[in-house]
Amino acid sequence: MRTVDAYAATSATDPLVKTTIERRDVGPKDVLIEIAYAGICHSDIHTVRGEWGDIAYPQVVGHEIVGVVAEVGADVTRHAVGDRVGVGCMVNSCRECENCLAGEENYCLEGNVQTYAGVDRDGTITQGGYSTHVVVDEDFVLRVPEAIPYEAAAPLLCAGITTYSPLHHWEAGPGKRVAVVGMGGLGHMAVKIAVAMGAEVTVLSQTTSKQEDSLRFGATAHRATKDPQTFEDLKDTFDLIVNTVSAPLDLDAYLRLLRRNGTMVNVGAPAEPLPITVFTLFGARRSFAGSGIGGIRETQEMLDFCAERGIAPEVELIDAAQVNEAYERVLSSDVRYRFVIDAATI
Amino acid sequence: MRTVDAYAATSATDPLVKTTIERRDVGPKDVLIEIAYAGICHSDIHTVRGEWGDIAYPQVVGHEIVGVVAEVGADVTRHAVGDRVGVGCMVNSCRECENCLAGEENYCLEGNVQTYAGVDRDGTITQGGYSTHVVVDEDFVLRVPEAIPYEAAAPLLCAGITTYSPLHHWEAGPGKRVAVVGMGGLGHMAVKIAVAMGAEVTVLSQTTSKQEDSLRFGATAHRATKDPQTFEDLKDTFDLIVNTVSAPLDLDAYLRLLRRNGTMVNVGAPAEPLPITVFTLFGARRSFAGSGIGGIRETQEMLDFCAERGIAPEVELIDAAQVNEAYERVLSSDVRYRFVIDAATI
Repeated sequence: MRTVDAYAATSATDPLVKTTIERRDVGPKDVLIEIAYAGICHSDIHTVRGEWGDIAYPQVVGHEIVGVVAEVGADVTRHAVGDRVGVGCMVNSCRECENCLAGEENYCLEGNVQTYAGVDRDGTITQGGYSTHVVVDEDFVLRVPEAIPYEAAAPLLCAGITTYSPLHHWEAGPGKRVAVVGMGGLGHMAVKIAVAMGAEVTVLSQTTSKQEDSLRFGATAHRATKDPQTFEDLKDTFDLIVNTVSAPLDLDAYLRLLRRNGTMVNVGAPAEPLPITVFTLFGARRSFAGSGIGGIRETQEMLDFCAERGIAPEVELIDAAQVNEAYERVLSSDVRYRFVIDAATI
Repeated sequence: MRTVDAYAATSATDPLVKTTIERRDVGPKDVLIEIAYAGICHSDIHTVRGEWGDIAYPQVVGHEIVGVVAEVGADVTRHAVGDRVGVGCMVNSCRECENCLAGEENYCLEGNVQTYAGVDRDGTITQGGYSTHVVVDEDFVLRVPEAIPYEAAAPLLCAGITTYSPLHHWEAGPGKRVAVVGMGGLGHMAVKIAVAMGAEVTVLSQTTSKQEDSLRFGATAHRATKDPQTFEDLKDTFDLIVNTVSAPLDLDAYLRLLRRNGTMVNVGAPAEPLPITVFTLFGARRSFAGSGIGGIRETQEMLDFCAERGIAPEVELIDAAQVNEAYERVLSSDVRYRFVIDAATI
């Protein structure tokens, strides 16, 4: 065991505070990572505030982690000391179910082990990336190509893969019209990735305040969802809608924007059930789907794709002491487009 | 114009009565069909009772029609006098939108012209198949192969294509596990067609009362949805669920029966919005979809498929005078599996 510095939540209502946590000894298949940067995901806030269920405290969150390998176990073959690596939303899975065997550990039938607030194989509660070090099984550690700017890489491990996976699965590409709903941490990555895949991309955002950014990221249009005319003009238009918004939306209104055989896929995670009118789906053989992060193999593919295409998140680097302020700014959508904690300040 | 006998609804609450209606003169592209049989679809009942919106009365319904060509217009090339033909749920479309051009007139962006209670090109209200004759544009008339028993063919024009189309689109076939929810007119055809396509089929019905029929139609299992254990045992099982039930169901409970990348497609048409929990979809990249009948080309493909595979609906032949009694029996699920009106009795 080793004691490391971290920022932890001590209750659902108190601010995060600096503390220390224990990391397990480096086992034969483990990698010790010295964390360089950790992204702040909206999920972190939902989790520490108990909005997705009760958790045990203290809890360190953060599942967008990049750093350098500081030590490897005796049987590690995939990573070496000094490598630039990353860890995303999961750190283990059953490895035996049909989904794990297909390389889609994100859909592990036993439930994968989440990077934080999950139950690890040894029964302990996993602690996330707002910390100086983490120990992770090598199979759940990704290579982070040097071509990706170091301080911007972390958000790829959640926001990047969460949007890449559905864009890849539903074949965004040349000739496809893709809409991205919401221009936050996930949304701005969805735009950049869909554009790089060759799709024609429209941003659907509450207002036009981010229009300039949308066009800069390669979208061909940006429309305000507060304007009812948007829903008239864009009826039967899109092959794929990626909805990154966690707040409940009028799904029928968005589904009507799909052309025949189109799919609207939610990566935003509203907790409450949302109503759908089946007649809206009938009209054009439309589908409503959900997608949850991506498998390890696909996450590596996404990192390599971003390196090759020169895609990176837009980040605002902060010191660890600013984390509580950053949370408030995330909640008021006042971030363009992802906060990243400089782990050297923890 | 010609005056023909028919059974019509005169209000949302009165029984159907025998009457006469006018059919248009046979235009250059029209086919006059002497109707032999007309199936009774649950949609007929919803429509005449105003449950899907107000309609004008008197209204003749029926969109599962087979008969013989009695006369053709000067420019008709697809059909000849004496041919056995059929008409389904639509009798025209815009023919110019991207969906019509793709041969999927069922998804016409202008809205196709429904066989009954639709607004025809000349502004008149279309009148359906509970009648002795009908005049239809040849492009919306299907060939009914002789290999299909004449008195059983009619339900293929709605129940057949409505289930064939999603089974075909989502690629039911060898190695695929398909569940059919509801064993009525649509459900029993879904079972027969999915089995013929090579899929492994499970029927999900309220009780086990139709279990023997399910197995006779080729399903490998029949499970009662009234038994909560069904939903435990079948979690993460199906690649495709075809839901033929029009009553609202607990969608989340059924969606959890889908394995990774599975789709639940509704062909049943509940009028009210149904709640879906996005987290249910996340867990295995599941989709919820809707499918509406099928295009003319696909309907012909379905008829040829059924002829080749020896598939036909199970029908109960009735005289036209029994139609009101038959409606009550449809509403109490007391039909195995489709009523067909002998048009000679009209």
